[in-house]
Amino acid sequence: MPIVTIKMIEGRTDDQKRDLVEKVTAAISESVDAPKENISIIIEEMQKSHFAIGGVRKSDL
Amino acid sequence: MPIVTIKMIEGRTDDQKRDLVEKVTAAISESVDAPKENISIIIEEMQKSHFAIGGVRKSDL
Amino acid sequence: MPIVTIKMIEGRTDDQKRDLVEKVTAAISESVDAPKENISIIIEEMQKSHFAIGGVRKSDL
Amino acid sequence: MPIVTIKMIEGRTDDQKRDLVEKVTAAISESVDAPKENISIIIEEMQKSHFAIGGVRKSDL
Amino acid sequence: MPIVTIKMIEGRTDDQKRDLVEKVTAAISESVDAPKENISIIIEEMQKSHFAIGGVRKSDL
Amino acid sequence: MPIVTIKMIEGRTDDQKRDLVEKVTAAISESVDAPKENISIIIEEMQKSHFAIGGVRKSDL
Repeated sequence: MPIVTIKMIEGRTDDQKRDLVEKVTAAISESVDAPKENISIIIEEMQKSHFAIGGVRKSDL
Repeated sequence: MPIVTIKMIEGRTDDQKRDLVEKVTAAISESVDAPKENISIIIEEMQKSHFAIGGVRKSDL
Repeated sequence: MPIVTIKMIEGRTDDQKRDLVEKVTAAISESVDAPKENISIIIEEMQKSHFAIGGVRKSDL
Repeated sequence: MPIVTIKMIEGRTDDQKRDLVEKVTAAISESVDAPKENISIIIEEMQKSHFAIGGVRKSDL
Repeated sequence: MPIVTIKMIEGRTDDQKRDLVEKVTAAISESVDAPKENISIIIEEMQKSHFAIGGVRKSDL
Repeated sequence: MPIVTIKMIEGRTDDQKRDLVEKVTAAISESVDAPKENISIIIEEMQKSHFAIGGVRKSDL
């Protein structure tokens, strides 16, 4: 039932994403004692021009 | 004022999406007594490689 | 797999919320041909002081 | 620490987006007294066929 | 049509929140040329025990 | 820069939540090679009456 959304800058490989969902699912299952099959993960990628910290976008650095 | 976000795997047709927002808007309007014009719906599509249940992505099944 | 989030002003009764998730689940299942058991719905309630249109909060109307 | 998500219909220019994150960051920093470097902004664009008000999508108007 | 979500640690006053939605609405309206009445803002407050950077929650600092 | 949101049913202890953000931060850092200090995690708890699968809320089971 945990539903996880991970927003990150685009550019990771398919292998990194596979590894990401495996490891995060395991981490949640262990820490809050939830069966793995109840854990959903959504990856959302952002372009560098769509993410800013301190008013400056990654694409403008 | 209800603001609805529907996340689903990509691949539905344009007709299915049109039907989706019509039916969901009607369902909300009836059940919580909100005027239809106050209901906003956002559809967000995910690639199969960006959604996992139980640590396994749809693209890896 | 459709994951639905419904944000609305607080104050609906428990019966309205039960009705809401039943009707919205049925509406999605019919329109995009998804089995009901794959559809998750999250209700998120907002205080009137936490929602604004046109720069004016519901609590200030 | 304020984390801001701005969802809007696609089509704004890169200059408009740069201006958007600058102005919104300044507006938040002034109003809630947060240092600018603590403010993150995510822009999420929607196609017209993925946004509906009153059960009608922007692409169907 | 811009729909904005602002997540921040709880504790701001009602006046700060009123000011926040006014200023952010104006900032968006100016920068992307959207009528103010089309801009919705949702404020979501987090407890310090529900927000972490670098694996450490605000409540544990 | 990864920004993670974890939605789950309320009821976990403070220790479980501390453990959760530590382990998830480590899992992300390892799998996508991001420095821990760039990873933000937000926990959002839901009441059982605000979460449904298959049209039935957890509170109605």
